[in-house]
Amino acid sequence: MTADTSDDTDRLTRGQARLSEITGRSGEEVMAALGDVAPDFARYIFEFGYGDVYSRPGLDLRARMLATVAGLVCLGHAARELRVHIGSALNVGATREEVVEVIMQMALYAGFPAALDALMIAKEVFAARGLAAKAD
Amino acid sequence: MTADTSDDTDRLTRGQARLSEITGRSGEEVMAALGDVAPDFARYIFEFGYGDVYSRPGLDLRARMLATVAGLVCLGHAARELRVHIGSALNVGATREEVVEVIMQMALYAGFPAALDALMIAKEVFAARGLAAKAD
Amino acid sequence: MTADTSDDTDRLTRGQARLSEITGRSGEEVMAALGDVAPDFARYIFEFGYGDVYSRPGLDLRARMLATVAGLVCLGHAARELRVHIGSALNVGATREEVVEVIMQMALYAGFPAALDALMIAKEVFAARGLAAKAD
Amino acid sequence: MTADTSDDTDRLTRGQARLSEITGRSGEEVMAALGDVAPDFARYIFEFGYGDVYSRPGLDLRARMLATVAGLVCLGHAARELRVHIGSALNVGATREEVVEVIMQMALYAGFPAALDALMIAKEVFAARGLAAKAD
Amino acid sequence: MTADTSDDTDRLTRGQARLSEITGRSGEEVMAALGDVAPDFARYIFEFGYGDVYSRPGLDLRARMLATVAGLVCLGHAARELRVHIGSALNVGATREEVVEVIMQMALYAGFPAALDALMIAKEVFAARGLAAKAD
Amino acid sequence: MTADTSDDTDRLTRGQARLSEITGRSGEEVMAALGDVAPDFARYIFEFGYGDVYSRPGLDLRARMLATVAGLVCLGHAARELRVHIGSALNVGATREEVVEVIMQMALYAGFPAALDALMIAKEVFAARGLAAKAD
Repeated sequence: MTADTSDDTDRLTRGQARLSEITGRSGEEVMAALGDVAPDFARYIFEFGYGDVYSRPGLDLRARMLATVAGLVCLGHAARELRVHIGSALNVGATREEVVEVIMQMALYAGFPAALDALMIAKEVFAARGLAAKAD
Repeated sequence: MTADTSDDTDRLTRGQARLSEITGRSGEEVMAALGDVAPDFARYIFEFGYGDVYSRPGLDLRARMLATVAGLVCLGHAARELRVHIGSALNVGATREEVVEVIMQMALYAGFPAALDALMIAKEVFAARGLAAKAD
Repeated sequence: MTADTSDDTDRLTRGQARLSEITGRSGEEVMAALGDVAPDFARYIFEFGYGDVYSRPGLDLRARMLATVAGLVCLGHAARELRVHIGSALNVGATREEVVEVIMQMALYAGFPAALDALMIAKEVFAARGLAAKAD
Repeated sequence: MTADTSDDTDRLTRGQARLSEITGRSGEEVMAALGDVAPDFARYIFEFGYGDVYSRPGLDLRARMLATVAGLVCLGHAARELRVHIGSALNVGATREEVVEVIMQMALYAGFPAALDALMIAKEVFAARGLAAKAD
Repeated sequence: MTADTSDDTDRLTRGQARLSEITGRSGEEVMAALGDVAPDFARYIFEFGYGDVYSRPGLDLRARMLATVAGLVCLGHAARELRVHIGSALNVGATREEVVEVIMQMALYAGFPAALDALMIAKEVFAARGLAAKAD
Repeated sequence: MTADTSDDTDRLTRGQARLSEITGRSGEEVMAALGDVAPDFARYIFEFGYGDVYSRPGLDLRARMLATVAGLVCLGHAARELRVHIGSALNVGATREEVVEVIMQMALYAGFPAALDALMIAKEVFAARGLAAKAD
């Protein structure tokens, strides 16, 4: 087991920074959504999601976020999260084309409707960022 | 739309080669399983799955197969396919550590039981290949 | 097998009363939504859902509705039903805090996106009932 | 709402007969599996599943059971039930080829792994019934 | 394996015609939605979805589309696709009543919320087509 | 946000104790399964799953574990985890009857096959503990 002497303050601070780096959103935004219903859930997102899992070495962020996009397509119901993390994938260096490739590939595993819904979300994210239409 | 003048024979041949490159299995093995129940389904796997989708440019195979592992973890029920494609990920250059990272990360999206089941499958695949235990 | 001598009229009447007690909605409201497309489906909801299952002894309603909230979070796609039964849980004596605890706990099993979506729905239900924000 | 004056004894008797007609299994077999853990659940299967739903007019049994096979493929996790109802589809007049067509078609909606797993189950059911291999 | 000498142009043309026959939508509409994000995905829908799978003999279109409706109900998350294919089922000869029967039946396999959501979609599709309310 | 000054050692120790209290399994058993493939995943189970989430006040353990059973039934694919936590529910004071009630109730939300599979698992857990058959 990895020795981990960091205390919870470290995990929280590290997680909020990692959240911001990956998603482009601040911890304040997450807390604004959750603060009056489940503030500890925001804390778990920071500490466990970003401070623990997304702070791990062993895999580059671009591959991590493309994997997350793939996973969210296969869940089928995670439209909100998919929108965020298609953006995250672009933020950490994946191209528009790579995101589209991953989503299309998931049609093999989760079916065409899940992939089609995800492509419609990707289209919106790309448009909001002013990414030019695919030329082919 | 990409001009594609290839006929179906090309897709079948290209797909069987790609299947073999990625999974290490031959088209004959797939046909042996499916041939007496749904031979056309084997053909679709070759032509569409591997001849079309997995023959696309635009994303490297290592990122593709890590994304597939992620997607299969999130489906929850795809034990057979997960076993095959954890192997595929290793075949195309992903490391054991990278596969484990992707699976652990999916606990955030699909929950701990799906990730835990996938880690048990990964453990078997690694053992069958004589990959040494993680040292830490 | 439990002796059950009640006829269908009993199940229907008992079910509509139980539906009203749990959800705060009347059978008329359910029938208004379903009556011109599938009136028998409304009848099954009354007779089987509430007249049979939710009329069973053996578990108190508070634990039943917290379990239902947990189950609906794990389904992932059941936003409409989750909204109704977060309200039902409150109706039968669960506290706002208990509902939030159950939803957060499901992040372990269904992942963070499903739990986060459910918390956003809970927030709306709490607000509609004028339940004060969590103080901490 | 359909007037339904039948009492529960009617539903139970009708349901057990319908179960037997569709699945080829007797109510005794179902009760043998469930009787010492949840006998009322067996009763609900008889009364609601077969006495209510599968006793409805409005759709022929062959189309009903092919639809059930499709639905079970898309659930992904229902191997036991899929085995039973592939048999049911054959019992009520669907051909082996029709069952295979429905399963293959679901690859479009639920992905290839779910369809492939279902085809492997279908292969076993066909073999157990001595249905000859597809000739093509 | 079925000998299939058709080239990709055949599959594309056949698929677009089949799409139009089944869904009442033109290939242009599908391409309008996908063309600037993933035009090849539209091509796969035409070629593989409709040119391969939905062009197969061995099962009539009415049973095929009722099976698709059943499958989509069980996926739980496929609201967009369900709307399209409830329409497709009607287009190829299924009655309003048969569509409702299939959806209600899926409550047994996918639960009441998935079936209820599907019935609400069906109600909208029926209303848009001016199909009279169920009389009973 | 709850002030939480505990460091990670506290979370680990607290989590392993909580795991043992709830599941009756030791941290060593979990580590034996995961140690040579993903030891950090075992740590997350201890720290986050049991040290954070299952150590929260605000809901009694009996209601927590019944909710977990409900959630796992609705996931559909979590047989291994369901076996563990049917046991956990019994460990923390739920009765055999209450576990069965929760599982049967989930047939309304996740369908009969998921509930039936869970009842078969419950039957095995009850038998392994020598719990007498239901008398009715």
